[in-house]
Amino acid sequence: MQFPEKISKMVEHFSRWPGVGEKTAIRYVLSLLRWNHDDLHALSSAIAELTLLKRCQECGLISEETTCDICKNHERFLHKTICVVEGVADCFAIERSGEFKGAYHILGGVLSPLQQIGPNELTIDKLLLRIERRDIREVILALNPSVEGDITCSYLRDVIPLKVRVERIGMGIPMGGNLEHLDVLTIHKALENRRSL
Amino acid sequence: MQFPEKISKMVEHFSRWPGVGEKTAIRYVLSLLRWNHDDLHALSSAIAELTLLKRCQECGLISEETTCDICKNHERFLHKTICVVEGVADCFAIERSGEFKGAYHILGGVLSPLQQIGPNELTIDKLLLRIERRDIREVILALNPSVEGDITCSYLRDVIPLKVRVERIGMGIPMGGNLEHLDVLTIHKALENRRSL
Repeated sequence: MQFPEKISKMVEHFSRWPGVGEKTAIRYVLSLLRWNHDDLHALSSAIAELTLLKRCQECGLISEETTCDICKNHERFLHKTICVVEGVADCFAIERSGEFKGAYHILGGVLSPLQQIGPNELTIDKLLLRIERRDIREVILALNPSVEGDITCSYLRDVIPLKVRVERIGMGIPMGGNLEHLDVLTIHKALENRRSL
Repeated sequence: MQFPEKISKMVEHFSRWPGVGEKTAIRYVLSLLRWNHDDLHALSSAIAELTLLKRCQECGLISEETTCDICKNHERFLHKTICVVEGVADCFAIERSGEFKGAYHILGGVLSPLQQIGPNELTIDKLLLRIERRDIREVILALNPSVEGDITCSYLRDVIPLKVRVERIGMGIPMGGNLEHLDVLTIHKALENRRSL
């Protein structure tokens, strides 16, 4: 016997999610079958409503309006600092830490000659405009550590006016990390970034 | 900054799924944001359509119609065997193995005095009626190994007519399992269920 078509359609949808294989997808669908109809309809319309979300026209963050809450908030520009991230998820991750009080800029990825992502595929021009218009003094590059991330950082340092300080977030051993299990590159970066106590 | 409300609503929905915490839920929502609108609407209506699924009035399996494909198929009753499972997921798991050609019966759980699940909360009466009406000769109990599963098996053996053979699926080391890492109870069952070669 095959799954009823409605179920296999759902399994197909869920299998497209990150880290979800067929087995997990089936598990999710079967758990949905135990929900009551009201909850299922609520979930269904919540997903349909995602199509109403926009990109903030200034920083590129997901937002309910054309300008996001952060870009609308003047206090976030008081320090004249912009944190550049690859994607929306990175921005939310930094916001959750509560450590950063400035504004963000979503780059939309990193430079990657192999995947044919050049400066024009990213929001670099927009970033330069914002730096000028908002009189930004400091840019923090919160790009993930990778060869492409490194290249992108160098490129950004080159194109951002010299009077603007450009810094990259620290790389090294993560909290709770274990030297024994860390990869060589991380250990290399951790040694490179050592600080005197 | 908080997530836009549409996103946090989705995170709440997904967090109800088995094994999905807040972090995974956020990851799923962010991946959905990369889908195009057509796909999102398709997923949304697929979820809404789940409410149209029914329970097979005979065996209790999820079905598009009032009687499921298995119960409609006379060949599945040729061997006069019914396989009793706790829930729908177990039935699909056995079907995937392709090993069983008989019919199923979804019990809806196992007896559990602690959770106040007695015989009336399960579909035991229905099972007995089916055994009689379909002239079933063999019942295979495919209940998960647990104290409640054991109690339920004994109870079912007591109430099913003696002329019907009642068997429970084998318990022991799973394929690819490793004695070293298995729990004591499984090893106990494996020794108990040893077979001469």
